[in-house]
Amino acid sequence: MSFFHLENNDSQARAGLITLHNNRTIRTPVFMPVGTRGTVKAISQQELRELDIEIILCNTYHLYLRPGHQLIEQTSSGLHKFISWDRGILTDSGGYQVYSLAPLRKISEEGVFFKSHIDGSAHLLTPEKSIEIQRSLNSDIVMCFDECPGLPAPYEILDKSVELTARWAKRCLSVPLNKGQNIFAIIQGGLNLDLRMKSLELLKDSDNDNAFAGYALGGLSVGEKNEEMVELCEKFVPHMPKNKPRYLMGVGTPLDILRGISNGIDMFDCVLPCRNARNGQAFTTRGPLNIKNSRFTMDTGPLDPDCECKVCKNYSRTYLRHLYLVGEYLAGQLLTYHNLHFYTQMVRQAREAILQNKFKEYFERFLVNYSSARWTS
Amino acid sequence: MSFFHLENNDSQARAGLITLHNNRTIRTPVFMPVGTRGTVKAISQQELRELDIEIILCNTYHLYLRPGHQLIEQTSSGLHKFISWDRGILTDSGGYQVYSLAPLRKISEEGVFFKSHIDGSAHLLTPEKSIEIQRSLNSDIVMCFDECPGLPAPYEILDKSVELTARWAKRCLSVPLNKGQNIFAIIQGGLNLDLRMKSLELLKDSDNDNAFAGYALGGLSVGEKNEEMVELCEKFVPHMPKNKPRYLMGVGTPLDILRGISNGIDMFDCVLPCRNARNGQAFTTRGPLNIKNSRFTMDTGPLDPDCECKVCKNYSRTYLRHLYLVGEYLAGQLLTYHNLHFYTQMVRQAREAILQNKFKEYFERFLVNYSSARWTS
Repeated sequence: MSFFHLENNDSQARAGLITLHNNRTIRTPVFMPVGTRGTVKAISQQELRELDIEIILCNTYHLYLRPGHQLIEQTSSGLHKFISWDRGILTDSGGYQVYSLAPLRKISEEGVFFKSHIDGSAHLLTPEKSIEIQRSLNSDIVMCFDECPGLPAPYEILDKSVELTARWAKRCLSVPLNKGQNIFAIIQGGLNLDLRMKSLELLKDSDNDNAFAGYALGGLSVGEKNEEMVELCEKFVPHMPKNKPRYLMGVGTPLDILRGISNGIDMFDCVLPCRNARNGQAFTTRGPLNIKNSRFTMDTGPLDPDCECKVCKNYSRTYLRHLYLVGEYLAGQLLTYHNLHFYTQMVRQAREAILQNKFKEYFERFLVNYSSARWTS
Repeated sequence: MSFFHLENNDSQARAGLITLHNNRTIRTPVFMPVGTRGTVKAISQQELRELDIEIILCNTYHLYLRPGHQLIEQTSSGLHKFISWDRGILTDSGGYQVYSLAPLRKISEEGVFFKSHIDGSAHLLTPEKSIEIQRSLNSDIVMCFDECPGLPAPYEILDKSVELTARWAKRCLSVPLNKGQNIFAIIQGGLNLDLRMKSLELLKDSDNDNAFAGYALGGLSVGEKNEEMVELCEKFVPHMPKNKPRYLMGVGTPLDILRGISNGIDMFDCVLPCRNARNGQAFTTRGPLNIKNSRFTMDTGPLDPDCECKVCKNYSRTYLRHLYLVGEYLAGQLLTYHNLHFYTQMVRQAREAILQNKFKEYFERFLVNYSSARWTS
């Protein structure tokens, strides 16, 4: 069984199947909920399974600092057993978190020196070290350690980062992985199409013996305008290898994801459905709504009348609003469950539409519904 | 079908069956988890059902202030539909919360004037008002509005409170309830056996036409020593009516509950299993353990090796400790689930033992196990 099987193309949109070690499969396009510290916030692994979620993302930076990758390896031979999750796990490289969270960092050819955001302790993260940590975590999909400049950034900075990222990717490949682990390359280059092409070519140079199982687009959703990201994807994604999964890192809103799919992206991750749930925002087929809104005070309807999830079947907006306003745990738990159901259903329905060559119609219908109510206005 | 059916006496311990409106039943002895604001913290109603919990307690004081009993009545005709819980609900009278939470309160013959702990707004809670609120909430079991002095308290204070509580109980009975609602009297009198007897007799005077469906012991676990409470129960509970449920309010630890059962108590409620869960304490058959303890750092065993709950089947101490230390929601969710499973199983097993006239043996075996490990020391 090959790692990625492309089932259908509908214009640029793709439906495929990723097969992990032990024949676990992931239907694409796929949205991966973020389980930063080994848990998707406010939801249990049983419920993730109930939602038919096939893969989650965990953060190498956080798990390296607490509880430490050695503890996870020694007690549980990896993350799966440690967190009690036998489905897919993708770990990021730790690079992005170092850039966005660590209070002090110095980038050199060797790697990134940083101080922990927790206790100020000093650490050096190199490409080799990142892969070794991810090997200890024994994730199914390992990400290369890249350099990710914020946007906007001048051409020279982006060019340097493209080249450094390519040299680091080569060093990442030098570290052996566990049986069943797969490594993805990360393409940099900001919003510049030429630099993205250069980054891709440099990475492909290291990929002669099919070392990379997939290619990710890094360095997006880091400060640029949404249209700029969409435009870059539209122009660049078709150039990415067709026989491997394409992963748009850290994206995004429901519309970002559907646009990504229509441009040929297969994988997404984002904290949005979970973080916004804890802040009272529910995604619905008729657009996002904020449960704080006083218009829901006496509203006995479900969050989303068109949703089949257990939250919508059992709980009313008036109750959820009450829970949120008094600061009860259950508000975050129930909204998280609903939002992950919404994201998962959305990409599953997109997949079905692609398989039937009807993605464009699906997307258009989604858009009409999604803008039919403006709850948050 | 009578409200309470006594199935067996084993020495003083009792096994019984409470039958609510629509033939919903509650097996006694029973532990009622506390759902202060219409939710048992950090656990969903689906999970409470999964745990086979048959009744929860909700707080009139909190629901009166937020979201307001009128909102609950108008949107949902009561708490059951509002919170999506078709099993039993007992509401307290609001009295205890007024005494323990409100920053300012004045007790008169009429009732209690107080200021809200949320916004300082002024309210008058009378016996009639308390019952009207509980009628709006449409709980299955309504509690009389009582006066509950903290302990220790001088004889005169306790005596006055016994008499006031009796007069208030009579006023509570004057308010009609909804069909299917049942009202319990609350006995006061502190640690003084004579005053408890007096309180009981005064309340029974109002109970000629079987107005009270059950009798509760109030004003305990409010500052006195544990042994004092146990001794009072031992001496007093046998005098309580045998044909009605006996409810020890706000109690307690696993040992408190088993001692209460052995003295003839049928019903308990307490925030302990939930609050302590959120503080990292798990109740186990071998005694309580604190998941923060460094001895669990590398411990891959379950919270309780003798527990069959889904938390113990799926998650390790090392993972739960990690979740707790990094402050993840899931720690509180999983420990709450486990602790409520522990409490529910404990009273169910006690019940089975009573039905077989083996409660003493059960209690002794429980005690031996419960002191076999001292995790928290």
